[in-house]
Amino acid sequence: MSVLVVGSVALDTVKTPFGEVKEVLGGSATYFALSAHHYTQVSLVAVVGSDFPKKHLGLFRRKGIDTKGLKIKKGKTFRWKGYYEYDLNQAHTQKTELNVFRTFHPKIPKEYKRIEYIFLANIDPQLQLSVLRQVKRPKLVLCDTMNYWIEKKRKELLLTLKEVDILLLNDSEVRELTGEHSLFKASRRILKMGPETVIIKKGEHGALMWSENSHFAAPGYPLEDINDPTGAGDAFAGGFLGFLAYTNDLSEDNMRRAMVFGSVMASYNVEDFSIERLERLKNKEIIERYRAFKRMTHFEDLNGEVIE
Amino acid sequence: MSVLVVGSVALDTVKTPFGEVKEVLGGSATYFALSAHHYTQVSLVAVVGSDFPKKHLGLFRRKGIDTKGLKIKKGKTFRWKGYYEYDLNQAHTQKTELNVFRTFHPKIPKEYKRIEYIFLANIDPQLQLSVLRQVKRPKLVLCDTMNYWIEKKRKELLLTLKEVDILLLNDSEVRELTGEHSLFKASRRILKMGPETVIIKKGEHGALMWSENSHFAAPGYPLEDINDPTGAGDAFAGGFLGFLAYTNDLSEDNMRRAMVFGSVMASYNVEDFSIERLERLKNKEIIERYRAFKRMTHFEDLNGEVIE
Repeated sequence: MSVLVVGSVALDTVKTPFGEVKEVLGGSATYFALSAHHYTQVSLVAVVGSDFPKKHLGLFRRKGIDTKGLKIKKGKTFRWKGYYEYDLNQAHTQKTELNVFRTFHPKIPKEYKRIEYIFLANIDPQLQLSVLRQVKRPKLVLCDTMNYWIEKKRKELLLTLKEVDILLLNDSEVRELTGEHSLFKASRRILKMGPETVIIKKGEHGALMWSENSHFAAPGYPLEDINDPTGAGDAFAGGFLGFLAYTNDLSEDNMRRAMVFGSVMASYNVEDFSIERLERLKNKEIIERYRAFKRMTHFEDLNGEVIE
Repeated sequence: MSVLVVGSVALDTVKTPFGEVKEVLGGSATYFALSAHHYTQVSLVAVVGSDFPKKHLGLFRRKGIDTKGLKIKKGKTFRWKGYYEYDLNQAHTQKTELNVFRTFHPKIPKEYKRIEYIFLANIDPQLQLSVLRQVKRPKLVLCDTMNYWIEKKRKELLLTLKEVDILLLNDSEVRELTGEHSLFKASRRILKMGPETVIIKKGEHGALMWSENSHFAAPGYPLEDINDPTGAGDAFAGGFLGFLAYTNDLSEDNMRRAMVFGSVMASYNVEDFSIERLERLKNKEIIERYRAFKRMTHFEDLNGEVIE
């Protein structure tokens, strides 16, 4: 099955302790698409300005990403400028220029309306809901958000969450949304808001998946070099949802595998700036790292050993 | 096989967001012993003052912990006063009264000199080395330390590390000891300092074990209620080394199991103040939580699936 993503395509200026880049390709829908296309067909709904470099459009097409839903509007493309210090889990925003993104009203092309796997990337929850009003009975809706919407549009966010299957947040957002410090209690609250599953991203510490009857912990992958954490969460979402759509199997076992594929994509993404690593990533490397995750987490069950 | 621990026995006054306790039983050797005794015979070397409550001595004995090496010296017992805020990974020390611990020179009783599994809890690295000079060819030496010794007695610590098999640190200590931010690079440095294995404790985010040819990640156990993180690292050490000594098997597979038993003990320890939870812990509960860890981390390997 294919996947639909609705989110931002941006030009990012990013500084980390390991280097800096200016006006490079970024945005939540971009990272998601360049991750998920390794697994399945991706259709992209977003907006860019008339200044958006042609080479980026060429990249999307070369990767087989359907850009019918990528609107090119008169004006400037959304720009984000930020930096990271040694705590790479924490992005510091210096400047956000919404530009054409300010009046973004996602319109889902007719050909996309029956796509069954949907990622609502981090945009205004009202726009997320408007996407769900335009599509036909999707099989799985994965939704991201951020502290800004939790604070400014809480009511709208709660309405959107009622129609979402899986909510994807980082640990501080989970705590802010629920007012619970314990991720255990916080997850239980989120499961009452609508989603049947919540995934908590913890950066270098991995990710957790909770549903009513199970929880799963995927560790972070220990990397020798992390250059730029931007987009890690969306690359995760791309591997997770891309694999689920590709296999079209929502069993617990398969969701757990999808968590690991998500972790694999996030771990590759942070090795280089912008989408560089995802762009040159080979499927063979994805499989290799999946197996490395397996080796890294495996331990034997007890075989009748009894401690005295 | 049995285990020997050399460290502190203290009276702690602790405040957390969930309660406070005054002059309760604490200290690194205490937590270790009350964890490890679930697996094997524990011999304790430490010092307390003449004010040390008899009931605590009774507890050690009731649990079968050998206190021949626990010296009762005229004067006051070591006291620690501290608090935690919502970030339970970070202890804030308000007062440390070394008292009789100031002149602690561990003397290993003759009967302990052939114990093969040794935990050098967090004490002055010179004292740790003096312990190793008194014992006979141990099979495994596990060593803890802290930022204070890394800063004040770096040279002595490096000498001790040459004779240690496994170093146990938290992530900030690893970074401080090596000057490397990446835990990957930091671990590689530590493996050049002497230990063949390093274990990095990450509090609620679990623990990592690195050796030259393998690394293993154990997740944190998601708890509904964490009341007091004091002693979690020593409870971990007790489960880890206790299980290794009990099984007397240092294979990679068994070390990984030991990591999970360590995580089990740490996760129980933080559920209550002081050693309360370890004291009433049943071996059946240990096995149950080991299995819960297994369920929580298990995912299927790839069975020939190929992503296109």
